[in-house]
Amino acid sequence: MAQASLSRAEFEAALRALAPRYWDRHPFHRRLHAGDCTPGEVRSWVANRWYYQQILARKNAAVIANCPLPDVRRRWLERVTFHDGARDGEGGRADWLVLADAVGLAREELLDERHVARGTRFAVDGYLHFCLHRPWLEAVAAALTELFSPELMAARVLAWRRHYDWIKPEGYAYFENRIPVVRGDAAYTLDLVLTLCRTADEQQAAVRALAFKCDVLGAMLDAIDYQGGVA
Amino acid sequence: MAQASLSRAEFEAALRALAPRYWDRHPFHRRLHAGDCTPGEVRSWVANRWYYQQILARKNAAVIANCPLPDVRRRWLERVTFHDGARDGEGGRADWLVLADAVGLAREELLDERHVARGTRFAVDGYLHFCLHRPWLEAVAAALTELFSPELMAARVLAWRRHYDWIKPEGYAYFENRIPVVRGDAAYTLDLVLTLCRTADEQQAAVRALAFKCDVLGAMLDAIDYQGGVA
Repeated sequence: MAQASLSRAEFEAALRALAPRYWDRHPFHRRLHAGDCTPGEVRSWVANRWYYQQILARKNAAVIANCPLPDVRRRWLERVTFHDGARDGEGGRADWLVLADAVGLAREELLDERHVARGTRFAVDGYLHFCLHRPWLEAVAAALTELFSPELMAARVLAWRRHYDWIKPEGYAYFENRIPVVRGDAAYTLDLVLTLCRTADEQQAAVRALAFKCDVLGAMLDAIDYQGGVA
Repeated sequence: MAQASLSRAEFEAALRALAPRYWDRHPFHRRLHAGDCTPGEVRSWVANRWYYQQILARKNAAVIANCPLPDVRRRWLERVTFHDGARDGEGGRADWLVLADAVGLAREELLDERHVARGTRFAVDGYLHFCLHRPWLEAVAAALTELFSPELMAARVLAWRRHYDWIKPEGYAYFENRIPVVRGDAAYTLDLVLTLCRTADEQQAAVRALAFKCDVLGAMLDAIDYQGGVA
């Protein structure tokens, strides 16, 4: 007998129930926001996360490549542009370079990826592969970590300003630009997933996709924590 | 012993040498431009080509998803927008719907894909799969049929106006909008391929990719010709 699908409210609750798996509760993240990380650990986090930031335009393009709905493709294109910018020196990638400068990480050390842990590489490459090769709605559902991220980013800026006075304040541009956009993106993404995942199988696949994405992020922090700070 | 790579000029010549494999010389295309196709055959061509038009935004997004160079991604994004439009009712897809109306093909018959030959489906799906799964520079090289297409599209508009007075002239918007864009795109794509494919292996892969793409287009015309006109 085919399993019954969840109501829209039940399905949303099942997605939101993954909140404890989101990386805000990771021991490294708790230390990062409590002011207990060394400058070298903050730099390591920035360098590892750069590897993730770099694939965001591409994983969003993968959603578009696999999506048969023109309206969704058009809307999703804004995310590619958000990260890559309309021109060189603009967009999320460029803002992350500013953050790297602000935490005292040399541009060369960021770009040559010397501080990127192998665990970060496998997790991030796995995420891009997932978005390229899984059904597009699962890649969309994986983006639902943005349900949890605006609060975390807002808390990060406050915590870092308080605890790490050695970080130049212009470094926060990425988070300040991203927070309002993510709130809008999250509402759109959630509506898309709740509306288009109708069968029990599709709903379960969406929940699994979000759990997978939480594991991508968690595996990055595991690898960063294990590796220790940048010398 | 590793094979020597071609000079830039030799490599360009090798790519251009594929011109005879382009679909302009296909018997169906010759009849189409000579005024020898029935209205049903013209409609069949429009309906089958719709299936191809529909994946163009997606295959271009696949290039972006696989490309590690932000400058190339930003430039390639214009192609996604060209086909999907900035909003509903704009862009190449919308222009193709106008062409369908102009040749007397009911919107419903176009959208339900009833006239799409199975050979068209396999060829076009194969092209999207190629762009998703092969190295991004091969997908870029496959786009080099645009070296040959502006002349063909310009000739088509002239030939159709002369031979098929039953086609409404507003139907030519797609070709009229596409021709100037393709000329610019072709120059950019050619420079990219000539510059970035350096080894003999990479150059040969690019030539094979362009031959493959010619076969995608040729297989569509084979299937259309075999199937005959729309009733």
